[in-house]
Amino acid sequence: MQLGMVGLGRMGGNMAERLRAAGHEVVGYANDGSGDVASLDELVKTLTAPRTIWLMVPAGEATNSTVTALADLLEAGDLVVDGGNSKFTDDAVHAELLDTLGVRYVDCGVSGGVWGRTEGYGLMAGGDAADIERLLPVFDALRPEGPREEGFVHAGPVGAGHYAKMVHNGVEYGLMQAYAEGYELLSAGGPVDNVGAVMKAWSRGTVVRSWLLDLMVRALEADPHLDQITGYAEDSGEGRWTVDEAIVHAVPAPVISAALFARFASRQVDSPAMKAVAALRAQFGGHATHKAGEAANEPPTGG
Amino acid sequence: MQLGMVGLGRMGGNMAERLRAAGHEVVGYANDGSGDVASLDELVKTLTAPRTIWLMVPAGEATNSTVTALADLLEAGDLVVDGGNSKFTDDAVHAELLDTLGVRYVDCGVSGGVWGRTEGYGLMAGGDAADIERLLPVFDALRPEGPREEGFVHAGPVGAGHYAKMVHNGVEYGLMQAYAEGYELLSAGGPVDNVGAVMKAWSRGTVVRSWLLDLMVRALEADPHLDQITGYAEDSGEGRWTVDEAIVHAVPAPVISAALFARFASRQVDSPAMKAVAALRAQFGGHATHKAGEAANEPPTGG
Amino acid sequence: MQLGMVGLGRMGGNMAERLRAAGHEVVGYANDGSGDVASLDELVKTLTAPRTIWLMVPAGEATNSTVTALADLLEAGDLVVDGGNSKFTDDAVHAELLDTLGVRYVDCGVSGGVWGRTEGYGLMAGGDAADIERLLPVFDALRPEGPREEGFVHAGPVGAGHYAKMVHNGVEYGLMQAYAEGYELLSAGGPVDNVGAVMKAWSRGTVVRSWLLDLMVRALEADPHLDQITGYAEDSGEGRWTVDEAIVHAVPAPVISAALFARFASRQVDSPAMKAVAALRAQFGGHATHKAGEAANEPPTGG
Amino acid sequence: MQLGMVGLGRMGGNMAERLRAAGHEVVGYANDGSGDVASLDELVKTLTAPRTIWLMVPAGEATNSTVTALADLLEAGDLVVDGGNSKFTDDAVHAELLDTLGVRYVDCGVSGGVWGRTEGYGLMAGGDAADIERLLPVFDALRPEGPREEGFVHAGPVGAGHYAKMVHNGVEYGLMQAYAEGYELLSAGGPVDNVGAVMKAWSRGTVVRSWLLDLMVRALEADPHLDQITGYAEDSGEGRWTVDEAIVHAVPAPVISAALFARFASRQVDSPAMKAVAALRAQFGGHATHKAGEAANEPPTGG
Repeated sequence: MQLGMVGLGRMGGNMAERLRAAGHEVVGYANDGSGDVASLDELVKTLTAPRTIWLMVPAGEATNSTVTALADLLEAGDLVVDGGNSKFTDDAVHAELLDTLGVRYVDCGVSGGVWGRTEGYGLMAGGDAADIERLLPVFDALRPEGPREEGFVHAGPVGAGHYAKMVHNGVEYGLMQAYAEGYELLSAGGPVDNVGAVMKAWSRGTVVRSWLLDLMVRALEADPHLDQITGYAEDSGEGRWTVDEAIVHAVPAPVISAALFARFASRQVDSPAMKAVAALRAQFGGHATHKAGEAANEPPTGG
Repeated sequence: MQLGMVGLGRMGGNMAERLRAAGHEVVGYANDGSGDVASLDELVKTLTAPRTIWLMVPAGEATNSTVTALADLLEAGDLVVDGGNSKFTDDAVHAELLDTLGVRYVDCGVSGGVWGRTEGYGLMAGGDAADIERLLPVFDALRPEGPREEGFVHAGPVGAGHYAKMVHNGVEYGLMQAYAEGYELLSAGGPVDNVGAVMKAWSRGTVVRSWLLDLMVRALEADPHLDQITGYAEDSGEGRWTVDEAIVHAVPAPVISAALFARFASRQVDSPAMKAVAALRAQFGGHATHKAGEAANEPPTGG
Repeated sequence: MQLGMVGLGRMGGNMAERLRAAGHEVVGYANDGSGDVASLDELVKTLTAPRTIWLMVPAGEATNSTVTALADLLEAGDLVVDGGNSKFTDDAVHAELLDTLGVRYVDCGVSGGVWGRTEGYGLMAGGDAADIERLLPVFDALRPEGPREEGFVHAGPVGAGHYAKMVHNGVEYGLMQAYAEGYELLSAGGPVDNVGAVMKAWSRGTVVRSWLLDLMVRALEADPHLDQITGYAEDSGEGRWTVDEAIVHAVPAPVISAALFARFASRQVDSPAMKAVAALRAQFGGHATHKAGEAANEPPTGG
Repeated sequence: MQLGMVGLGRMGGNMAERLRAAGHEVVGYANDGSGDVASLDELVKTLTAPRTIWLMVPAGEATNSTVTALADLLEAGDLVVDGGNSKFTDDAVHAELLDTLGVRYVDCGVSGGVWGRTEGYGLMAGGDAADIERLLPVFDALRPEGPREEGFVHAGPVGAGHYAKMVHNGVEYGLMQAYAEGYELLSAGGPVDNVGAVMKAWSRGTVVRSWLLDLMVRALEADPHLDQITGYAEDSGEGRWTVDEAIVHAVPAPVISAALFARFASRQVDSPAMKAVAALRAQFGGHATHKAGEAANEPPTGG
C-alpha cells in the first residue's frame, strides 16, 4: 500500500527501506530535504486519499508540531501513525485534535534499533480495531518473520502502544544494567580469565541468553575491555516515564529505577550527593576528603 | 566415553540421559537407590580407571561429603567434576584434597534447567587445561548444538567455572526482576488490554527478546493473570554470593541486590522493617496503623 | 496578630492552639462545623482587612477548592498561606489566581507532626519578601524556641516552601527506612539480646542520634517487638513527588526511591512482580511454586 | 580506676583524655612511641593486676596481632576490651584465645567520632555481665551525660557490642545518603534559593532533625556549595558487613546497600558497568558513545 513517512533518520529511513523492499510505496519527507518531497504540504498532495502517514520524528516538540501541521493539511479518512517514542499521554491529545477533523490516529511503539531493517521491528500498536486492521499490511512488512503475534500486538486503545513501548524500554534498562553489573563483577579480579569468552559461552543453553547478551558479546569482541569508550550512558525518556508511571500506580520498581539512576550518575562529573557524604564523614570523623584541585576519584592525599 | 554420574535429580538425571543419547556410557548413582549402582564404592569399582565422575548433588554438605567419600575410593589419574551449584571457594578445598591423591578436579557451572536435556546446557568450566581437554567429549555432548564457544567456556583455573556460574545467576536475578517489574506495571491499570499479548509481541524484533521472555510468555499463556501461584520466590545461594563478591570487590550492584532483596521480602509474612516504619509514622504523625488481628496489607481501620 | 485558620485537624487544630497560646487571635473554620465560624464567608466577614488566612487542609482537591472559594471572598491586600502538603506546582496556580485580585500568597511547608504544638514546627516558606515579613509574628509563634533560622526559612519565591518540604519528606522516608532496616537486622537472629535497649543506647553520643531515633525508642518501649502493629506503611505524596523531581533533574535518588518502593510493597497482599519471578523459576527450573490456596509467604508444599 | 589504652590515634587519644578528665588513671601505649610506655610489655608491667586494657587500634591485622601479643603477657583475671571497629566474628576468636588463660574479654562498639571527647561516646558492649559490671566506671566516663541507658548498652554476649556497632554504622550510611540525596535535589535547579539555609531550618521542630543534619549544616556554613571537596567517599568496612549480615539473615536492605554502592561508585574513575551499558546502546541503537580520549562525563561528540 501507499504510505507517507515523515522523518528519515536512523529509524524512519530504515523502516522506509524495509517497507519498499516488501513492495509498499513509500513517499518520504524529512525536514533536512533528504526525502522524496520538499514539504508536508507536498507530501499530502502526493499521497492518494485516504492517506496513511507514519511519523518517525523525535518525541515531544517535533512530533507535536508535525501533528499540528498535518491537522491543517489532512482530510477525513486519512490516518496518522505516530511511530516515534512519544509519551503515551501525548497520544490522547493528538488523537483528539485529529478526530475533530475525521482523521484517524494510531500510536505504535517500535523496537529493534538499527537491526530492524534486516531483522524486522517489534511493534506495539494502540488505536481502534478498524484502524489497526487497515494498517496490517504495513505492520506485517515491518515486523520480523514468524507468527504475527510474536512481533506485533494491538495493545489496546490509543496510547496503549506507546505505553507498552515505554514499559518495554524500562525493562530494557533493567536488563542492560543486570548484564553490565555482571560484566563488571567478572572483570573485578575474580578467577575468571577471559570475561568476553565467558559471556559468549552464555549465548546458548543458559538461562541468561538473549539478544542483548549477543550484542554484549559483539561489543566485547570488538573491544575486549571496552577501552574505546567511557561509561557515559544517556537516557531517552522512556525509562523516566516508566518510573513515573510505577509511582503513579504504586508499583515497586527497584530494578528499573536503579538502572535509571545509574545512568544519571554516569553523566555526573562530580556527584553533589557524594560531596555531601564526604563532607559529613569529614565532620564527624575527621576523615580526609579530596580537596578541589586534587584529581577526582583518586584516594585523598592526607588525613 | 565412560562417566560416573553422582546425583540423578532433575539436573543429573537429565544430563545422564543426554550423555547416553550422545553415545556415552553413564553409570549413575543416587543415594535414593535409583541409580545403576548401590553405593559410591560400587560406582568406583564399576568404572574403568582412569575414571571420570561427575557430581550433580546439592551444594554444601552433600557435595562436600561426596568429595570426601570419593577421596577414600579414587586413585591417581581419576577425575572429579563438580557440576553442582557449589560456591567457588569450595572448589579450592576440594581440588586440594584430591590433589594430594593425584586425583584431578574440575568445576563446571551448568545452566539451562529442565530444558537442558533437549536444548543442551550452558557450561562454564574451571581447571587445568589438560583436564578440560580430557572432558571435551562430555562437554560437547552436554552443550547445545552450534559453535562450542557459544555454549561452553574454559573460564580459568579451578573455581572459575563456579565463579562464572555465580555471576550468571546474579545476572539472571536482575533479568527476571526487570521482566517482573514490567509485568506488574503493564498489569497495574494503564491502557494495555492484554499483558500476555504484549509480552508475547516482544518475542521477536525487540531489544528485550530473550529466552526468559519466552518463558514468561509461556507462563502467561498457561495462567494469564498468574492466579495459580503466589509471589513467593526462593533463592538458591548464587545471588547472595554474587552480592557478597560485589562487596568484596567494591563493585556497585544495585540491580542484582535489588532483585535479591525483592525475593527476601517476598517470603516475609510481615516485614519487621515496615512495622518499624509504620510505628514511626504513628509516633510523629498520629497516623493510623494496622493493629495485629486486622488483616495485613489492607488499609487500617482508623485514624 | 489576627489570623483565620481553615482546617482544624491534627495539624491545623494544634497550630491554632499554639498561636493562641502565643497571644495571637485565631478564628478557626473547619468544614465539619467544629470551628469558630460556620463558613468561609463568615470567616472572611469576621476577620479585619487586610486579612491573613492560613490553610491547613488536605493537598489537592480540598486545598484547590478552598483557594478558589476564597478568591471569590477576599479583597486586595489580603494574604493566603497554604500550610498544607500541597505539591509545589499547585502554588503557582494559586498565586496567579489570587494575584489577579491583589490577594497575596505564601506557601509554607510545616513539619513536626503531633509534637509541633508543644515543641514548635519546622517552617519552610516561599513567597515575596514583604509577605514573608508580614507573617513573621505567626512564623515566630509556630516555630520552636531558639534562633529563628534553625526552625524557619524563607526558602525562595512562591513554591519554594513546598519544594523544601517535599525534599524534607523525601529525606524523611530515607531516614526512616534506614532505621527500619537496622531494626530488622538487629532483630534477625544475631547476638544482640535486646534490640530496644541497643537503639535506646544510640540516643546520645552516637552518629545516628536523631529525633526519629527517639521516636523509634519510644515505639519500642511501648511495644518491644512491634507485635501490636503490622508492616503496612502509607505514603502521603511528597515521597512520590521527590522521586518525580529527582527524575526531572536527573538526580540519582536510590535511597529515597528504595524507601518509597518499600512502602508500596508493604501494602501489597501479593506482589504481581514476585508472582512473575516465581512463575519464571518454575518454568526454567521446575522449581516448586506456591499454589493459590496455600498460605502466602510460607514455603511451598512440593517440588 | 586504672586502665591501659593501646592505640592513641583520633579515637584512642581522645578517649584517654576524656577518661583522665573523669579521674581515671590511663597508661597509654601507641606503636609510634607517643604513649606513656614504650611497649606492650612495659604497659603490662606498669599496670597493677587485675589489669584492664582497652584496645583502640585498627580492626583486622592490627587488633588481631595486639590480642595475640597480649595473650603472652597477661595473666588470669586481667581484662581486655576491644573498642575498635572489629568485625563481630573476630570477637569469638579473641575471647576464646584469652579465655584459655583466664583473661576476660569484652567487645565495645564506640560511636561519636572526633566529637566524643567533649560530648561523650555512644557505647555498645558485649560480654559477660560480671565483666561489664567491672567496666562500668570506664563506660560511665566515656559515655555522654544523661541516663546511662541512653548512651550505653550491654547488648549481649561477646560479639554483640560490635554487632550493634556494625548495624549502627549501616544505618549511618543510609542516613547520610538520605541527606545527601536531599542536598543534591535541593541544589538541582528547583525554586529553592539557599540550600544551606533550608537545611539549617530543618534543625529544630522538623521530623528530620538530627546530629548528622547539624553536621551537614556546619559543613555548608563552611563551604556553601561544597566546592572545596570532591565526591569521593570511603567506606570503612562496617557498611559492607552490615549488608553481608543482611544477606545471611535474608533481611532486605535496599537503603543500606544503596548507600554502600553509592560510595563504591564515587571512587570509580570510570564505571565498567556503565561502559557496558554505553556499549550496548551503541550496538542496538547506533547511539553515540564517548570515545576514550574524550573527557569522561561530558556529552559525546557525535553519533
